Amino acid sequence: MSEPAAPFISFLSDYGLDDVFVGVCHGVIARLCPQARVLDLSHGIPRHDVLSGALALRNALPYLPAGIHLAVVDPTVGASGRDARRAVALRTAEERRILVGPDNGLLALAAERLGGVVDAVDIGRSPQRLEPVSATFHGRDIFAPVAAALAGGEPLADVGDPIAIDGLATVEISRAQADADGLRAHVLAIDRFGNVILDATHAELGAAGLRLGTDLELVAGGSRHAARYAATFADVARGELLLYEDAERMAAVAVNHGSAAQTLGLERGAPLDVRIA
Amino acid sequence: MSEPAAPFISFLSDYGLDDVFVGVCHGVIARLCPQARVLDLSHGIPRHDVLSGALALRNALPYLPAGIHLAVVDPTVGASGRDARRAVALRTAEERRILVGPDNGLLALAAERLGGVVDAVDIGRSPQRLEPVSATFHGRDIFAPVAAALAGGEPLADVGDPIAIDGLATVEISRAQADADGLRAHVLAIDRFGNVILDATHAELGAAGLRLGTDLELVAGGSRHAARYAATFADVARGELLLYEDAERMAAVAVNHGSAAQTLGLERGAPLDVRIA
Amino acid sequence: MSEPAAPFISFLSDYGLDDVFVGVCHGVIARLCPQARVLDLSHGIPRHDVLSGALALRNALPYLPAGIHLAVVDPTVGASGRDARRAVALRTAEERRILVGPDNGLLALAAERLGGVVDAVDIGRSPQRLEPVSATFHGRDIFAPVAAALAGGEPLADVGDPIAIDGLATVEISRAQADADGLRAHVLAIDRFGNVILDATHAELGAAGLRLGTDLELVAGGSRHAARYAATFADVARGELLLYEDAERMAAVAVNHGSAAQTLGLERGAPLDVRIA
Repeated sequence: MSEPAAPFISFLSDYGLDDVFVGVCHGVIARLCPQARVLDLSHGIPRHDVLSGALALRNALPYLPAGIHLAVVDPTVGASGRDARRAVALRTAEERRILVGPDNGLLALAAERLGGVVDAVDIGRSPQRLEPVSATFHGRDIFAPVAAALAGGEPLADVGDPIAIDGLATVEISRAQADADGLRAHVLAIDRFGNVILDATHAELGAAGLRLGTDLELVAGGSRHAARYAATFADVARGELLLYEDAERMAAVAVNHGSAAQTLGLERGAPLDVRIA
Repeated sequence: MSEPAAPFISFLSDYGLDDVFVGVCHGVIARLCPQARVLDLSHGIPRHDVLSGALALRNALPYLPAGIHLAVVDPTVGASGRDARRAVALRTAEERRILVGPDNGLLALAAERLGGVVDAVDIGRSPQRLEPVSATFHGRDIFAPVAAALAGGEPLADVGDPIAIDGLATVEISRAQADADGLRAHVLAIDRFGNVILDATHAELGAAGLRLGTDLELVAGGSRHAARYAATFADVARGELLLYEDAERMAAVAVNHGSAAQTLGLERGAPLDVRIA
Repeated sequence: MSEPAAPFISFLSDYGLDDVFVGVCHGVIARLCPQARVLDLSHGIPRHDVLSGALALRNALPYLPAGIHLAVVDPTVGASGRDARRAVALRTAEERRILVGPDNGLLALAAERLGGVVDAVDIGRSPQRLEPVSATFHGRDIFAPVAAALAGGEPLADVGDPIAIDGLATVEISRAQADADGLRAHVLAIDRFGNVILDATHAELGAAGLRLGTDLELVAGGSRHAARYAATFADVARGELLLYEDAERMAAVAVNHGSAAQTLGLERGAPLDVRIA
């Protein structure tokens, strides 16, 4: 039922939508590859938060058409010397998607989810970049024009210089640990509803003896809170806490019609103990 | 002057743009119906605020091309038992538009504006849904894929099970009442400028004896404020209150270069008395 | 490598994304010119801030395809008498772009950057406007439908009445002044990262004796702050101030991993003295 699809680019950043940064990158793409379709994944990644961006990309890409996936969260943009990061384009093993962005770990979790990287090029001196390259807006001057060239059919080898796959940057993510009382988890991310995503999978919850319907105690920052392991928000009363499996099959904590992050006083990276009550 | 148009989908939600929820729904649609054009109506509906979403849809749809209108404000997503709501797709009498979303009243005012519903199906177990269906993200797993299938030409009868039209959920909206002193109105919505939209029509203002240029007294929470019935913001001095007919021909209150909601201390649903000074 | 491009419209406003204003304008365009491609430049211009909108348009347009450029920041929408502003469509000398918006200075800097205006029409009574025209939402009723008509091929002369180019509104922007101690600059804009854009060009910094690597003193509101003239954020330690040339080649001040606007207590228009330490 589909016509031949236009080349597909997705775009994620921490640029926000208040300034014209995102619009200008769209403009650069529209000039260089007018036939591309560009999907904004989100531009609300917390500023400079490479890990949040990496998790968002990993979780979202499987739901997107295969194509060019442009991502910019780039705290050391333009730096030279020991702070310098490379600008890269990577081809993944599965579906031969191409990820374009800074080599600071932002692309690492998505690449891993897609079977790893099979080809990588350094695009910092790409013939496709816009001259003069500014020191602070590589989204406009390097990443967007390279993504547009790739969407237009340019081979990966022609947009940069080949680099070794095993030298690519990675990010560290915490892992929940089972203990005698249950599970010590950590906050991976907090969404706009104040729902708290933990570093434990569905399987790890089960291994720690947690079952749907179990009454729980959550310990955060020394405070104890009653909760229940439930399927969805409305399974507990308004204002009450629940542990649930989120749409990515990760453990998460929410308050029905409220904010778990606020109720528990949690920030990204903080520990949270989950115990059977 | 137009080519044959691509299938058209509009999308409204309370997902916000900080997370990838909206981008992932776009991705699902782009995979299933790449030729569809998707218009983001707004994703800034206040969280869980079904009535605000219903009003926004009602006001906006007449200005959009006829097509598939996807809307998700879904406080009881995934619930079972007495909190459960159905997931539905509805065809309207006028223009044969199709509304897709939760059956919690969100679609009711738009459907009414478009001549009522002529066909309805329950899509909770649609063959088009993405398996496994998560408990918390039906936008991705049910609503977006069904909208994409409909945009791709799938008949309504093939995406769900027929249900009775008179069992569909509705929402209650307040109505202003004329009284001896003028009009008792209520706050239907507040926009990003702090303009306060009331539950009175142009005709109801006239019936209460209000005319353009009339000096008014507005009574909110026991406080009295001078205002004028004017055509537009700049018809009163900076910082002064005006009553005006908004772009939907509803009565509204604003402060020129300010926020009426803040000046009057009003929230959604609050009463406001409009009197001739 | 490109197919014939669809007609191109860019759209900038202060409408925000919380309400359906932007979505409704997109709907109006999609009905009147379904083949147009619409690029959202930003809808986060501070409310009523014509100068910020004018600067954003000027900086962004050179990166966008030539086309129809719709912009709405319109504090006196619908006013009559001495507050009234015209609604206009302007053709620029370079690239024959067409700017559509209120004649309050919003379009002036972009027009100047594009070689000035060669044709101008008043579209306030355009045959393309949507009747009845509301007093408060000319984006929907005048600007969007006229932009759509122009994108669909309507000649400029057919969407409005010709007006004199030298009567078009302008905006005043400050200019930095060299003095004995260095440079007195002013805040032109503040971006979402708290970076402060100044009214001095790269050339003016050089003329004031400032060179990359120079240690500086910034004086704002009577307080003195150490800073360095650097190429990019990571060239100074976290939390430290730098003066840099931004992506538009304007002088700007930032804090690495922080907010210069907050550190220096600066708002739009405030003076900032830049001295060699």
